[in-house]
Parts: sequence; C-alpha cells; structure tokens
Amino acid sequence: MKQVVSVDNFVSILKQIASSDKDFVALHEPCFQGNEWAYVKECLDTGWVSSVGKYVDRFEEMLQEFTGVKRAVAVVNGTAALHICLKVAGVEPEDEVLIPTLTFIATANAVVYSGAIPHFVDVSDRTLGIDSHKLEDYLREISEVRGRNCYNRITGRRIKAVIPMHTFGHPSDLDGIVSVCERFQLELIEDAAESLGSYYKGRHTGNWGRVSALSFNGNKIITTGGGGAILTNDEALGQLAKHLTTTAKKPHKWEYEHDQIGYNYRMPNINAALGCAQLEQLPTLLKKKRKLAHLYREAFSKLDGLSFFWEQPNTSSNFWLNAVLLERDYVDLRDTILEKTNAEGIMTRPAWKLLHTLQIFKEYPSMKNDTAKEIEKKLINIPSSAGLIS
Amino acid sequence: MKQVVSVDNFVSILKQIASSDKDFVALHEPCFQGNEWAYVKECLDTGWVSSVGKYVDRFEEMLQEFTGVKRAVAVVNGTAALHICLKVAGVEPEDEVLIPTLTFIATANAVVYSGAIPHFVDVSDRTLGIDSHKLEDYLREISEVRGRNCYNRITGRRIKAVIPMHTFGHPSDLDGIVSVCERFQLELIEDAAESLGSYYKGRHTGNWGRVSALSFNGNKIITTGGGGAILTNDEALGQLAKHLTTTAKKPHKWEYEHDQIGYNYRMPNINAALGCAQLEQLPTLLKKKRKLAHLYREAFSKLDGLSFFWEQPNTSSNFWLNAVLLERDYVDLRDTILEKTNAEGIMTRPAWKLLHTLQIFKEYPSMKNDTAKEIEKKLINIPSSAGLIS
Repeated sequence: MKQVVSVDNFVSILKQIASSDKDFVALHEPCFQGNEWAYVKECLDTGWVSSVGKYVDRFEEMLQEFTGVKRAVAVVNGTAALHICLKVAGVEPEDEVLIPTLTFIATANAVVYSGAIPHFVDVSDRTLGIDSHKLEDYLREISEVRGRNCYNRITGRRIKAVIPMHTFGHPSDLDGIVSVCERFQLELIEDAAESLGSYYKGRHTGNWGRVSALSFNGNKIITTGGGGAILTNDEALGQLAKHLTTTAKKPHKWEYEHDQIGYNYRMPNINAALGCAQLEQLPTLLKKKRKLAHLYREAFSKLDGLSFFWEQPNTSSNFWLNAVLLERDYVDLRDTILEKTNAEGIMTRPAWKLLHTLQIFKEYPSMKNDTAKEIEKKLINIPSSAGLIS
Repeated sequence: MKQVVSVDNFVSILKQIASSDKDFVALHEPCFQGNEWAYVKECLDTGWVSSVGKYVDRFEEMLQEFTGVKRAVAVVNGTAALHICLKVAGVEPEDEVLIPTLTFIATANAVVYSGAIPHFVDVSDRTLGIDSHKLEDYLREISEVRGRNCYNRITGRRIKAVIPMHTFGHPSDLDGIVSVCERFQLELIEDAAESLGSYYKGRHTGNWGRVSALSFNGNKIITTGGGGAILTNDEALGQLAKHLTTTAKKPHKWEYEHDQIGYNYRMPNINAALGCAQLEQLPTLLKKKRKLAHLYREAFSKLDGLSFFWEQPNTSSNFWLNAVLLERDYVDLRDTILEKTNAEGIMTRPAWKLLHTLQIFKEYPSMKNDTAKEIEKKLINIPSSAGLIS
C-alpha cells in the first residue's frame, strides 16, 4: 500500500537518491570529467584566452553540429543571447513580446533591454511551458492582425514575437506555438537556456525558432563558467548576430569603424575551451541525467499526494532540473520541505516567483495565468546533477 | 646627426626592440607567468567555475587594495562596467554625457545603452585625454547651470556627466576635469579601461570619479579572458552596482524576487581566478612595460620628424600602449608604416576613428575637435607587451 507524502518520506527519498560524500548536495553542479583541463591549459600556454583563439570557432561549430542549426554564435551569457535574438528578429521599442510568466527573470529583462514590453502568458501543466491553446484563445480576444503585423487592440501596440521557454529542459508545445505564430504573424524566438539536449519530435529545441538562445551558466547541463549562444538557420541573421555581439566593427586590417550600435558580448576563448570539453561530455551527461530522473520517478511513485514531472510524448527532455508537484491537499508541505531539505544541506527550491506578480512588471500586460499560479504553489525542484549517478 | 624618419628606419627600430622568436609580434598580448594555472585548475577541480566561488570575492578585494577604492565589483567586461557606472551615477534617458571623441567605441555605446546622448569633446595633445580648458570654454558657451543641474542651451537637454578616458594608460588632466565638474555640476565617471596601474598625483586612476570602469580584456595590461570592474568610494553606489550586475535579486534562502530591472553582468569565478593570478603579477608587468617604453623613447629620440608619447609630470602611466606621433611634414608616412609593419608580422595600428565622425553618431552634439583630428592623422601604436622585456 502506498504511503501518503510527508516531509519525512520526501526527505528520505532525496537522501537515498541524491546521496553524496560532501556535506552539501547542490541543486545542479557541473561535472568536469573530460578534456576541460587540457583545453583550458592550452589557452593559458598559448596566451589565447580572450577574443582571439580557436576555441570560440570550434565551440560554435560543435554547437551547430549538436543542435542541427546552420549558425551558432557564442556569447557571454544566456541573457546577452536573448537580447541579441530580440534585436535580430526585428523587435522594436514599444513592441510587445509574449513570454511565459513562469520563467527566469532574464527572459523579461532581455525584452526590456530592447525597449519592448513583456506581455505575460499562462503555461500548461503538461509542459510547464506556454499553453498554446490558451494563447490562441487569448490572442483571438485581444489582438487583431492587420497585414503582416499583429496588434494588441487594448494597448494599440504591435505584438511582434513570442518566446517559449523550455522549462527545466522539458520542451514546450512547439507545434501548437508555431501554429499560433503563423496565424498571428508573430516571430518565434526560443528561450532554450535550459534545454540543451532536449528534443521536440526529434528536432533539437532552439532549432524551431527564427532565432534562439542557449545558456551555459554554471548551473546548466554544461557550463562555460558564464556563457550563452544564439542559434539560427538564417545565415543573414547569424551574421548580423555575430556582428552585433562583436561591437559591430567593420572588417579592416587596422581601422576601427563601427556601422551600428553594437555590444561587447563575445565569449572569451578560455570559456569556449571549457565549452568544447563540456560538449564532448554532453551525451554521457544526458544519459546520467535520464537515469537519475528514472530513479526519482520510481521512488516518488511509491508516494501518494504528489507527482514526479515527466517529459511529454514526442519529446525528449534533458531532465535539467527534476521537479516534484504536490497535489492540492498537500501544497502546504512545500515550505516545510524546502526548509528542512535546505537546512540539512540538500538544496531544493520552489519555482520562480511568477513574473507578472513582481512589482517591477505590475504595469505590463498579462493574462490571468491561473495554471501558473497553481504550479507555483506546488512545485519543488530537487538535486539534479549528473554527478549523482556514478 | 639625427636621421629623418622614414618607413625603413621606423620599421628597423620596431624590429630591434619588439623582436620575438615568433613570426608575429602582437600589439599587446597577455603574460601568464604566475599562479594562473594553479588557480584556474582549482576552479575546475572544485567545480566552482561560475557565479559561486571564492575568486570573485578575492579578485574584488585585491582590486580594492591595489587601486585604493572602497568597493570594486567584478563584471563580464569593461563595457558592462561603464553601463552600470552610468546607471548608478544617475544618468537618465535623454541626458547628455560628455566623452572624448578619441576613445574606443565602448565609451559611447555604454552611454547609448543608458538611453543617454553622447556629446563629443576634444582632447589635449599633452595627455591624449579630454582637454579641460577647451571643455570649460565650451561649456561656458553652450551650457547653463540651473540649481544643481547643467543644461545644454542649444538642445535643451540636461548634461549629467563627463567621462574622461585615460588613453593608452596616460592619465587625463584630472585636476582640470574635477574643477570643470564642480563648476558645472557634472558627475565624474572615469573610463579607466586602459589605465590599471596608472596614477595621477599619486592616486590611482579610477579613484577620482564618483564611479569608474576597468577592463581586463585580452589586450589589456592584465586579463581575465573577458572582464571588467566597477570602482567607487561610495559604499551605497558599490552595493547598488553589485545588485544591478547580479539580476537585482533580493537575498533569500530560495525565493526568486527581483526588485529592479537588473543585468547578468557578474564575472564568472574561473575568469576571476585568472584575474587574481594576473593582479599578483601586475607590479612586475608595470616595471617591464616602463622599461620597454624607455627603450622605445631612447631609440626614437634618434629620429627627427616624430615624437614618442610620454607621461605628463605628476602622473605615472602604465604605458599600456606605446604611441609614436609623426610631425606634420611626415604624417603621409603613417599608412605606409602601418602597411609595411603589419605585412611583416609586426602589429601596429592607428588611433581609433574619431567617434564624432562615425555615421552612427553624426547626429549627436560635438565640439569641433581640431586637436583630435590632428592626433588621428599622426598617431601610430606599436607593440607593447610586457613579454617583449625578458
């Protein structure tokens, strides 16, 4: 007979599966078991640590090969990648950009950096990403397509793009979102910061949007210390992204001429060296993370009152961060579980505070986001490092 | 008897002083002869490569000690540092910010990122930085102080700040600029990207402004791959800078609440590790660079028709990039010297194209900048790596 979830049996599962010889179990820590040393040392030995050096090119080529896109541009972090995605996709000041309310703040900040307006939309409890059906109904209600542009009938502003974010590595409903983009003349920009190694219908996340962003922050499935990348299948956009991320300097033997307001967003060579070694390890890391997710699913299946979040059919998740969802009668346990696990050195965390509820975004347009509110109350992320599997 | 400068005798001096066993002599390349590998390896061994780890704190403390400021905040690069300097100094959209026309484009770009207007001013041929006398005359003519603000009488906009940039490591005339700031109610923000290790009247550059920016790009006197720092003696501004560069997240055990539009500008730990090792080397690097400058000065003193640029009395330059200035009758040699040296694998370059002449800044306010125009025609930067001195 199944036990009902309690703080004790929840903690006990974590202790059993996320066991470590250290006195602290991170939510997600990197795993350096390949050529990391060799490549980084080569950078130091040759002096090529910065903007010149072969690892940036090699890392971009490896990313292209892995994700299947035509062009990858390595940058300083995922936020910078998103910022440039918005620029090259043609998002202009005062445009609105649809983003899920359940996401890390970088998604919204990048929209603000572009001078545009984040417009928050609800998520699905099957994917934790944008609910394409709700989005379609909502846009039918509030928007109007005139020519090749979509306008918000309430604010009068153009709605230019939608940014699905593949939450914790689980692909959003891309078929549904692509269809909404076509119907409403929206650009699709994927926030694939969390989903390197995740696939929707066999095609890599980040390979569906007109342009997409990856992150290699220290908590991601692979890391470059800090880093990110812009992905696109449009060669011209890829070139523009490279140009904008490298101060928009025109090529010349020695002259310093810049033809646009550009950015200093290029990834240093030493960070790219780490990235090359990490990408070589990615298939191994993906296997370990899937194994860890299976162990958690098995263990949590013995408890009533919660569910372990699993990938949708036709998708393959990288299981970046594992998540448990408490059922309605047990959501009061969330804070006690967070308290107890963190006090005992096992790092857990809730979902992000919904962006549409933050004071800084209160004036921006938003759906009601009922599902996201439910998810926020009941979700707990648990330790997910590949290193937990030997 | 002195020889008159020619392409051949110019190249010959470079070959003699900037000799190398490699087939290419860089304009400036890093020098890793200390604990670089030990510290970086420790990051890899412990897994702390990213936003958590001790090296960021240590690097900030070492910067504070070296420059004498109360607070240093390590960030991804010098451009990001300048952007945050402008934010915390209270520069608002539509304000004008006075910057030299002779500077790298990042100075102007950071102003544009803040929504403000770069206003280009002339430089002095004694410092290569802002000419404080010309600036004072100009402000008397075009501006008006009302209460605690200065207004441009022509554009009607507020002039909020001035950003001296210490060109090639040579301190600008800080006494004169401080006095202009006081008289015209302007905030002083130093662009000390090129002047780590440079002093004005015994006080480090970057320790004069309300807030200042450093750069550790791969071509600078020390490097972190990519990196920068914000310096300030105002504790509150320092805290605000740290907050804004780390997504403006409020401290909490697990909650994600952000109280401002923040940035993902923090320096990764692995880059800070490199920075700590490099800062340990800085006194040695400064000695070598000064020795190299002396060698160049001695050699070029044997030629007529040019001058080797030297530090001003009461300043101590880090001699980041050495510069030769051709006299009026010989400026036509500039392009041939650039062609020949670069063709032979000895990297040289001209000054940056003056910013007020770039198409993207053509509409912005500007002085006439006659001195900068003269300098642009006659300046050549020559190989300056500390590694050229054994």
